[in-house]
Amino acid sequence: MPAITYGGPEVSPDEPSPESQKLAESGILIQFLADLDERLLPKDPVARAKARFFIETATPLISGPFFRALSRGEDPEAVLEAFDSIQKLLPEEGYAVGEWSIADAAVTPFFARAELAFTNDYGKYEEGKGQAVWEKLQTDEKYARFCKYYRDLKSRPSFNETFYSVC
Amino acid sequence: MPAITYGGPEVSPDEPSPESQKLAESGILIQFLADLDERLLPKDPVARAKARFFIETATPLISGPFFRALSRGEDPEAVLEAFDSIQKLLPEEGYAVGEWSIADAAVTPFFARAELAFTNDYGKYEEGKGQAVWEKLQTDEKYARFCKYYRDLKSRPSFNETFYSVC
Repeated sequence: MPAITYGGPEVSPDEPSPESQKLAESGILIQFLADLDERLLPKDPVARAKARFFIETATPLISGPFFRALSRGEDPEAVLEAFDSIQKLLPEEGYAVGEWSIADAAVTPFFARAELAFTNDYGKYEEGKGQAVWEKLQTDEKYARFCKYYRDLKSRPSFNETFYSVC
Repeated sequence: MPAITYGGPEVSPDEPSPESQKLAESGILIQFLADLDERLLPKDPVARAKARFFIETATPLISGPFFRALSRGEDPEAVLEAFDSIQKLLPEEGYAVGEWSIADAAVTPFFARAELAFTNDYGKYEEGKGQAVWEKLQTDEKYARFCKYYRDLKSRPSFNETFYSVC
């Protein structure tokens, strides 16, 4: 579980100060960042609600099938269905809700983890099925909207600086 | 799943206008209300993060054991353990984080549903166990902080106007 310290004296991350605030849980942390930097969520309350709804809906859609494929060996095809459901939540083009926001930040690691696992056939499912699923994702027109979205997410400098992409 | 319409012409709730915004999911809706009314969350970003952390932590603590008791007949005592864990998240007195906030609003219905179910022994668990659990909650000093908190929540007019309390 990701955690941060906030405030207090400047210290090494290994030795957090008792004077700093300790915050944890990735969903909480991105909302915290959005409270500190208003560019990370739309200003309009309805758009903010839609951004949060996207996070709450898309995250379990992908995380369930992904972890069941990796840890229980269930068919990774279920992840493609999740991508299909997620692309239906998206507008015709662009990010999830208006400008890039924490809605997009919240789902990106799930997609990148899936790419990394499946292109390397990492997981308990039948060998080759991960690579086949990722191949299908990239070639089947059905997933074109999702692929465009994921490419948009991956093209951001913050992603490129922190993730070695295989494709 | 609770849903609201926002904006658009004034119409009957049964016939929502296509011009209004449709928003759903209770956790999203209370954040939406907090965006519309700044009294519903603290202003300080760290306190806001703590309020959201309380919601994310306390809600699954109670909902899991509660629904397992009702629908699968598991021992309702697990709900007391949840109340104990929740009271450890609370400050010595008062609401979850500063003034009454959506952190408190989010958990209140779970406690009230538990009270209603257990005091009426409603659920698949062994008859009498629900009432026994609620009796223990009210009499065992161990749960004093939780009970004070729940009484504070129940004393609010908005609660009293919408819930018939049995005790």
